[in-house]
Amino acid sequence: MAISTAPGRSALGVVRVSGSLALRVRESLFAPDHSDGKVKPRVAYHGWIRDPRTFNPIDEVLVTFFPAPASYTGEDMLEISAHGSMVALRLIVEACQAVGARMAEPGEFTRRAFLNGKLTLDEAEAVADVIAARSEASLRAAQQHLRGAFARTVEELQDRLTHFLALIEASLDFPEEEIELMDEQEMVQHLRQLNERVRHILQTFDRGRLLRDGLHLVLAGPPNVGKSSLLNALLRYERALVTPIPGTTRDTVEEDCLIKGIPVKAIDTAGLRITDDPVEKLGVERARKRMAEADVIVLVLDLSEELSPESETFLLQALPDNPRKVLCLNKTDLPRKLRRKPAADHFHAVVETCALNGEGIEALETAIADTVWKGGSGLDEETLLVSRLRHKELLEAASNALEKAIDSLISHAPLDCVCIDLREAFHSLEKITGGDGTQALLDTIFSEFCIGK
Amino acid sequence: MAISTAPGRSALGVVRVSGSLALRVRESLFAPDHSDGKVKPRVAYHGWIRDPRTFNPIDEVLVTFFPAPASYTGEDMLEISAHGSMVALRLIVEACQAVGARMAEPGEFTRRAFLNGKLTLDEAEAVADVIAARSEASLRAAQQHLRGAFARTVEELQDRLTHFLALIEASLDFPEEEIELMDEQEMVQHLRQLNERVRHILQTFDRGRLLRDGLHLVLAGPPNVGKSSLLNALLRYERALVTPIPGTTRDTVEEDCLIKGIPVKAIDTAGLRITDDPVEKLGVERARKRMAEADVIVLVLDLSEELSPESETFLLQALPDNPRKVLCLNKTDLPRKLRRKPAADHFHAVVETCALNGEGIEALETAIADTVWKGGSGLDEETLLVSRLRHKELLEAASNALEKAIDSLISHAPLDCVCIDLREAFHSLEKITGGDGTQALLDTIFSEFCIGK
Repeated sequence: MAISTAPGRSALGVVRVSGSLALRVRESLFAPDHSDGKVKPRVAYHGWIRDPRTFNPIDEVLVTFFPAPASYTGEDMLEISAHGSMVALRLIVEACQAVGARMAEPGEFTRRAFLNGKLTLDEAEAVADVIAARSEASLRAAQQHLRGAFARTVEELQDRLTHFLALIEASLDFPEEEIELMDEQEMVQHLRQLNERVRHILQTFDRGRLLRDGLHLVLAGPPNVGKSSLLNALLRYERALVTPIPGTTRDTVEEDCLIKGIPVKAIDTAGLRITDDPVEKLGVERARKRMAEADVIVLVLDLSEELSPESETFLLQALPDNPRKVLCLNKTDLPRKLRRKPAADHFHAVVETCALNGEGIEALETAIADTVWKGGSGLDEETLLVSRLRHKELLEAASNALEKAIDSLISHAPLDCVCIDLREAFHSLEKITGGDGTQALLDTIFSEFCIGK
Repeated sequence: MAISTAPGRSALGVVRVSGSLALRVRESLFAPDHSDGKVKPRVAYHGWIRDPRTFNPIDEVLVTFFPAPASYTGEDMLEISAHGSMVALRLIVEACQAVGARMAEPGEFTRRAFLNGKLTLDEAEAVADVIAARSEASLRAAQQHLRGAFARTVEELQDRLTHFLALIEASLDFPEEEIELMDEQEMVQHLRQLNERVRHILQTFDRGRLLRDGLHLVLAGPPNVGKSSLLNALLRYERALVTPIPGTTRDTVEEDCLIKGIPVKAIDTAGLRITDDPVEKLGVERARKRMAEADVIVLVLDLSEELSPESETFLLQALPDNPRKVLCLNKTDLPRKLRRKPAADHFHAVVETCALNGEGIEALETAIADTVWKGGSGLDEETLLVSRLRHKELLEAASNALEKAIDSLISHAPLDCVCIDLREAFHSLEKITGGDGTQALLDTIFSEFCIGK
């Protein structure tokens, strides 16, 4: 049993119960307005939930019973639709517990759906991704998985491998039968095609991951260059406290937004400078930590101030190598005094902006999005995107095994060895849809779900 | 049409459509898995929502149709239960708009329920209070209203007034009939009883309001006395950044918690001292503003530091008169040096604490709760609490009118005048349950609802 809607004041909140206790919970807690003693499946009944210990009314509700197996989990399920009051929902949960129901683990309902054969493992993962989708593009990518597109692609690859394996194994088991085997040349060609297909899917991972997890964007730079104003400009509202005083931002300020369809966590950091103020020092340390974890760093400089050689050195040393970087020269509305600019080749793009009047903000957004899509649109309708590290690693394992098989064939190794590699590739693919799901794997996957799904 | 569940990632999110378009939305958007062409009332159908313009699938859903009048609003209603993904829910809303549905105003569904006679006005208000309830006590108080307890009490008062008015008016209209009228003495006594009843209900307003709106608790005091540590101790987790450096908290930090069953917004403020640092000055200004709006102020002092006469004067001047105040002497774990304590009679209570080891926190919570309940428990089961300013003002108007009527009777004014006052009292009561609801009143009441209810 779990609260399945988001916490917060709202019109409706839903508690779901799955399993053999569902009907008992209904009997013990629910006083319908009208009842002929029957419980019609999938029909919403109106009434009050009462505490089974005190008979005190808790909330006015609609209650619907979904008998197994035509429910989300494949088990008996009860849905209690109450007011969206966290207190009322908590009291309903406690009332369910009084009857013997227990709180569901995160993802437990979906896990049961998988175990009862209602979903493949990658479809179950897609449920979590649909819920977490932060843009239309990420939702569409996740729905593709939920609708089985990825599972079908993987199963098609598995079919081709099985066919292949059957051919080889037949020729090994019954050498006297002289089964028509392709020649090695042909086999290598086929396996290379197969591997190319896998590699092609793998290439979508970078975009898939960013659409799923969002891009970590860090605004960094010396104090008082307008980082907080730029954050507000990107968010289109006043989130961060802005004053003309250097060092106003001490802690990091984080906010989610969409930039060109990409979900972005924009992080404003304390100004980078050598300082003795201990609170400011803490802020600079946090800023460096955020920069090291960033996908994209926007280094902001003030066009109206010259940069000292020491500051330039300090800044360039503070910039980590890995993340893609955009140089943003802010305050185009003021007279230009900045001459000592870091070399443009450190950066993916250089953009001039005025955070106060919005000049160049659009160009900055395009530059940020370009660091991800590398010129391509990345948002076309039908591409199947791999977004989960687990899928990526399994596809890579499959691809590596295929390459080993190809090498073995080329070097005329015995066909037994080729078979071992091909079987390994097959098992890697099988794990994607959960044909080979072990307990520990399921624990990891479902632990990241929200409660109540 | 509106999203009726709270925003946020969750297993389920619900979109509701009310009105004549409900069935058309179902037809245009919903592709059920199985369909015999019929739409059975109140039955949950499984399938996909598709964009009616592109036929692209949006989300996997359950769809339930509630025909008028047996629905929440009393109109045809459609409930679409989708994944709790804000993107999917937004796309479903846009799909509904494509068919001609429009976004509901806040509280519009409940307003329609009121206009269609499904709820009285104070019951409709109780719906909002049930949703907003922040503790079991506030939920119970709101459910009392939702279940009609307040409406019945008010209607009973109205009945008694009507009876009274009928008697007087009859004697005025038909003086020759010599109707048995009570003597003035008896009338005054009856009206006084009635008024006492109204006053008694009115007295519950203070507690009702705090249970409904929550208590604004401000932690104030000089820098570095441990205000942020006390906030963390009250919240039972590390919310505020704590360092040994005075002035760490610059902006105010707010967090909701429960103290002895009372919903509390606890507000940590910047340390109060005379300062030239402009950012700190802003912080002190914000702190003063919060103190002026507080229900309770906890003035925190450091037991291990002496207070300068200037600081004491500055602090006492900064304390506004109105809110109730608790003096909290923190850092009992260190050697005591504080001698210059503000006089205890400024304060409701004086408590000694150590925020770091939790000493005295329980006593502080009791002192805070006592400022509200004034010794009484305030949480007994059956009391009907008035929590809305609107109800309070109408009850006060009724009481004032009753008092005027009593005065008129005592001073032997003509019975016509008494009737006018009694009719005024009656109309004030009538407005509580909405018998006399005007458009403007309805606008005000329903505008504070959440969308989707």
